[in-house]
Amino acid sequence: MTASNLIDGRAIASAIHEETARRVERLRARGVQPGLVFIRVGEDPASKVYVGMKERMSGQLGIRSETHVLPEATPEGELLALIDRLNRDETVHGILVQAPLPRHISEARVYASVAPEKDVDGFHPVNVGKLMLGDDTGFVPCTPAGVHELLIRAKVPVEGAEVVVLGRGNIVGKPLAALLMQKAPHANATVTVCHSRTRDIAAHCRRADILVAAMGVAEFVKADMVKEEAVVIDVGVNRVEDPAAPKGYRLVGDVAFAEVQPKVRLITPNPGGVGPMTIAMLMRNTVRAAELAAAAG
Amino acid sequence: MTASNLIDGRAIASAIHEETARRVERLRARGVQPGLVFIRVGEDPASKVYVGMKERMSGQLGIRSETHVLPEATPEGELLALIDRLNRDETVHGILVQAPLPRHISEARVYASVAPEKDVDGFHPVNVGKLMLGDDTGFVPCTPAGVHELLIRAKVPVEGAEVVVLGRGNIVGKPLAALLMQKAPHANATVTVCHSRTRDIAAHCRRADILVAAMGVAEFVKADMVKEEAVVIDVGVNRVEDPAAPKGYRLVGDVAFAEVQPKVRLITPNPGGVGPMTIAMLMRNTVRAAELAAAAG
Repeated sequence: MTASNLIDGRAIASAIHEETARRVERLRARGVQPGLVFIRVGEDPASKVYVGMKERMSGQLGIRSETHVLPEATPEGELLALIDRLNRDETVHGILVQAPLPRHISEARVYASVAPEKDVDGFHPVNVGKLMLGDDTGFVPCTPAGVHELLIRAKVPVEGAEVVVLGRGNIVGKPLAALLMQKAPHANATVTVCHSRTRDIAAHCRRADILVAAMGVAEFVKADMVKEEAVVIDVGVNRVEDPAAPKGYRLVGDVAFAEVQPKVRLITPNPGGVGPMTIAMLMRNTVRAAELAAAAG
Repeated sequence: MTASNLIDGRAIASAIHEETARRVERLRARGVQPGLVFIRVGEDPASKVYVGMKERMSGQLGIRSETHVLPEATPEGELLALIDRLNRDETVHGILVQAPLPRHISEARVYASVAPEKDVDGFHPVNVGKLMLGDDTGFVPCTPAGVHELLIRAKVPVEGAEVVVLGRGNIVGKPLAALLMQKAPHANATVTVCHSRTRDIAAHCRRADILVAAMGVAEFVKADMVKEEAVVIDVGVNRVEDPAAPKGYRLVGDVAFAEVQPKVRLITPNPGGVGPMTIAMLMRNTVRAAELAAAAG
């Protein structure tokens, strides 16, 4: 196969951003200004980059955003108090607490403190539960939602497909499995979740129609682990030391792209595949939160 | 294999009931009387039987129970008002709304209205979400919890096992999958969820170390669909017409027991396998709710 088997995440995300921008316009025409708040604790360099990207995209789409930067030593109670204040602020429709948080702060407590209707990251237990129950009134976490939308817009048949998800994290693996196994259009897949304790991961990979790699192991998926008709989605972002690179490292996915790409039916590039979709889903969740708040009066 | 390959759900449930009764005694010695409320709407015959069994078992264990029977035509608002009153009643530690509910009442709204800390059925989205997230502060639905406990006490190795779950319902299939795939002791399984849209269910069944049948199709699992080392758990309860039976029907599981039992390593009888475990887990959840309430002061 040639390079034409790439799923262009950037182009698909752009199309979604255009839709989102139109929804923002309609809200503003009705006097509603969608507002998104980022909270960052400490100075993790990757967090700075991610929040910066999300701020810029908010601005481009007409979503008002503000960022609270708290010192690394902030007590958990102070962070919870800030979230509580934002929960009650009617001009705020979405609240995103950027991970990772310092060790002295419980991520579970923090995520559970965000009002579910402002939880545009989809991490609150009530939103995770709704996803699992097939109740579409909640928010789906952005990366699984992005993978799903990528499959839909790339016209990959999901219903009845054998899906193998590598990784069982709370951010990608488990919610994606929940999403794709539902009795619902564009879902209805037979899903297997593999992880570090799986006996023969390669055998599972080889029978996958859709293989999603989200385990965080650099270039784990090799060419001999995929079948030729497979669609491969690479969610991984791994730092690999590389003295030749300007920063001393380069970023690679969970898929050995160079050897897998020529073999399979469709594959996401990385970067340029899932990454842009995650931000697109965050923006879409935010405008939906604003629409729901406006409808609720 | 002989009849010695049966997993005796009744005996295992009895052992758990004894543990639960001792926990009730300890609570009562501290002046705490565990209380469980059943709500039944309408006159569904199976619901009457189930609630009756749960009432009797509560009594045997020293758990105070009361049952509210509402007429079929009860408006949803009235049911929600009753639940709200029970949520605020400190003598009530567990609230169970027996399914099925009449068509004019939303099960999702009703389950979400029960205070999560009294949701001993584990159906509230927040408890489902916690299960999915690996947060053990919530309540696990009784049937999946019962299947899990059955595997543990029958010393079936779950970690690293290939588990195939047939059925993706909110009561059994999906929560059981979530439970067994967690990175946790007695979990860590590689889980596949199969359902009506799965392309080749038999092939999945044949590779299962642990096969859980919870799809609600009478005697679906045949001998040629299981491998010899398999452990088979039959959750199904199906009514099959039988003119020779006193009531005109008999109850059968999702497994063709007579032909599967001689072939496999371990299997649950049905009845006498998962059924007793479901009640045992309900009682255990209730005493845990009372313990947590007592600890919270």
